[in-house]
Amino acid sequence: MSKARLEAFSDAVIAVAITLLALDLTVPDPEHGALLTQLGDHWPQFAAYVVSFFTVGIIWVNHHARVNLIVVVDRTLLFLNLLLLLFVVLIPFATATMATYLTSGSEDSHIAMAVYAVVLEGMALSFTAMFEWSLGEGRMLVAVPIDQRRKARLRGSIGTLVYAAVFAVAFISAPLALALAGVTAVYYVFAPVPHAGIEAEVEELTSGPL
Amino acid sequence: MSKARLEAFSDAVIAVAITLLALDLTVPDPEHGALLTQLGDHWPQFAAYVVSFFTVGIIWVNHHARVNLIVVVDRTLLFLNLLLLLFVVLIPFATATMATYLTSGSEDSHIAMAVYAVVLEGMALSFTAMFEWSLGEGRMLVAVPIDQRRKARLRGSIGTLVYAAVFAVAFISAPLALALAGVTAVYYVFAPVPHAGIEAEVEELTSGPL
Amino acid sequence: MSKARLEAFSDAVIAVAITLLALDLTVPDPEHGALLTQLGDHWPQFAAYVVSFFTVGIIWVNHHARVNLIVVVDRTLLFLNLLLLLFVVLIPFATATMATYLTSGSEDSHIAMAVYAVVLEGMALSFTAMFEWSLGEGRMLVAVPIDQRRKARLRGSIGTLVYAAVFAVAFISAPLALALAGVTAVYYVFAPVPHAGIEAEVEELTSGPL
Amino acid sequence: MSKARLEAFSDAVIAVAITLLALDLTVPDPEHGALLTQLGDHWPQFAAYVVSFFTVGIIWVNHHARVNLIVVVDRTLLFLNLLLLLFVVLIPFATATMATYLTSGSEDSHIAMAVYAVVLEGMALSFTAMFEWSLGEGRMLVAVPIDQRRKARLRGSIGTLVYAAVFAVAFISAPLALALAGVTAVYYVFAPVPHAGIEAEVEELTSGPL
Repeated sequence: MSKARLEAFSDAVIAVAITLLALDLTVPDPEHGALLTQLGDHWPQFAAYVVSFFTVGIIWVNHHARVNLIVVVDRTLLFLNLLLLLFVVLIPFATATMATYLTSGSEDSHIAMAVYAVVLEGMALSFTAMFEWSLGEGRMLVAVPIDQRRKARLRGSIGTLVYAAVFAVAFISAPLALALAGVTAVYYVFAPVPHAGIEAEVEELTSGPL
Repeated sequence: MSKARLEAFSDAVIAVAITLLALDLTVPDPEHGALLTQLGDHWPQFAAYVVSFFTVGIIWVNHHARVNLIVVVDRTLLFLNLLLLLFVVLIPFATATMATYLTSGSEDSHIAMAVYAVVLEGMALSFTAMFEWSLGEGRMLVAVPIDQRRKARLRGSIGTLVYAAVFAVAFISAPLALALAGVTAVYYVFAPVPHAGIEAEVEELTSGPL
Repeated sequence: MSKARLEAFSDAVIAVAITLLALDLTVPDPEHGALLTQLGDHWPQFAAYVVSFFTVGIIWVNHHARVNLIVVVDRTLLFLNLLLLLFVVLIPFATATMATYLTSGSEDSHIAMAVYAVVLEGMALSFTAMFEWSLGEGRMLVAVPIDQRRKARLRGSIGTLVYAAVFAVAFISAPLALALAGVTAVYYVFAPVPHAGIEAEVEELTSGPL
Repeated sequence: MSKARLEAFSDAVIAVAITLLALDLTVPDPEHGALLTQLGDHWPQFAAYVVSFFTVGIIWVNHHARVNLIVVVDRTLLFLNLLLLLFVVLIPFATATMATYLTSGSEDSHIAMAVYAVVLEGMALSFTAMFEWSLGEGRMLVAVPIDQRRKARLRGSIGTLVYAAVFAVAFISAPLALALAGVTAVYYVFAPVPHAGIEAEVEELTSGPL
């Protein structure tokens, strides 16, 4: 299994999952009242769509950053990568469930948001496992220096810690937990990549003048 | 992040979104009357499908024209590209909503078409932002000459202006606004690409004899 | 627009469309009777799935054979290619409609099959237009010799003629028309490619030892 | 038809199919009782999702292992590959049907699981046919030594035998049959690839230093 095909397949799965997010948006029905009222009532769906869209988008970016540095693709990595994708593919389902219950005001709003947090936590833990795997001898194109390793681990931990926090906050207020997940996605979009220096070096090694 | 992977991911998202447009077409139900009558009653769905199909098709073409000239992929570009895709992925939803209300004859037909225009305007503005980003020092393979820059800006503005017009016309007549969006898509299919000269030059630089 | 990106995008659209065919298969509902009876009652869905699957599969193969020989991608080709994809993306809808009415025994079974034939005819005509475009000066990697051109035209015409025949037969018997479409798909799978000799030559030119 | 395009198309179809598996997960409805109860009642959907996800994931891995060694792509291979994809695309449907009936306790739970087994058996047999085709003179990059051939055949047979066993066990207990299919997927994730030695050799031949 070449790295290129691992990336191509993962990209395709992530691309389909991010596009399926919009299937959760309910097309308003003329028999259910004024259109603007219906769209307004469905604001949790739109908020959930935006948060999940950027979350999946950033998963794609981070997946590339991770895999780009890897030299060998063994069975363990394939399994961890499938595990990661298993959680990514669950995101549209978790998003739809969460949005449906977000403003229900009942106990279920907490549980629906907790389910969403669990799926994202599973995704974050799969990433962590992939990172730990990559530290093994000869698995990375360029050995990660100890201090970069610590930084990368910390950055990865932010994900697992934040989604644990989203899980906890879910039981206080589901909309607050959604806001926290949204802030996390925006943070990751602009946060410096883990071992950016190495990545630049690798880009240079792996690509021609263009 | 390499340009190639940015293109591949964007292509996949756009390809899935364009194909999901057909999911909005309602399969007629034998218990709802004669088939031809049902298909005829659903003409807004078919008209909306054709207009949105060519609109997304041309987004794909223009995306390529934009990204082809870019040298570096930084975090800002990634964010702008995700923003563009966020609106592209909303097009099937906006199309379905618009088609459902197009011939309702009520106030809602105007609002549904306005929502469609807002999604396309968001897409056009994301393109504009990507273009402005690309003007920064050293971000393009070949510096865009001032006059080509003006032409490209003008061409980009046509998109943002037209979808603003579609928004305005929506409140006069929804079908007229749809026709305007359709004419725009056809215009873009045949309009000369922005800096076509540069693109040809770049193709030559970036590809071999085949 | 490079040929590679045209192929990649078209491949993705065709791949999504062929996979969406299975969404038309109704998952049996425990409250609607014995499972085997339900599956048996839905045989038109399965027959339609198989015929459309091989039809879309062969469209993919033929698309490659066509595009592989092309040197330049201009706006006209982009438009014709989008037109082809527009019909391909309609196939799941046309298949679902046709399968729903296939055994209704009413006038509507004829009309539903005719709609299916119209979508396939539109696809076949788009292919023909792409072929005629490719005959223009300098558009093909290797000029197609006159006799091969005639053979290729004939082969393309088979498609347009057969789907016209499917249309006509639809008004006699919808299941018979479906069988004809199925036989056509099988024929194309095993029929020699149009200018196979040229293609082999091109493969040699465009690829390395592997 | 180049091998690269055969792989790219197959990858895209498999990626869409694996992502569509999650569409089978029912988003709980606030009017149908407590969320946790609903999620708990739907455990067969989640179990079926996990088993089918890893099954399709491993199909993707094995498809790569098979195609990677092939030199020529002829019409027969194209047909066999389409046949394989036809069964892969049916997996989401078969999974949804199986999950719907898994705990129904009636005769239908056996039949639904048998349908699932039949689809997987069809997939396994298509793989076997592709393998047998590949043994023809000059079709593989490196001739498969006789003993490796026997091992590969044995490994392929495990698939066809296991899914025959899943079919048989389905009539004793559907959940037991699902567990057997799950164990098979896990086995294939970690089982050594068929002619791994050859594959390594080929990777070396077909790729540069990276």
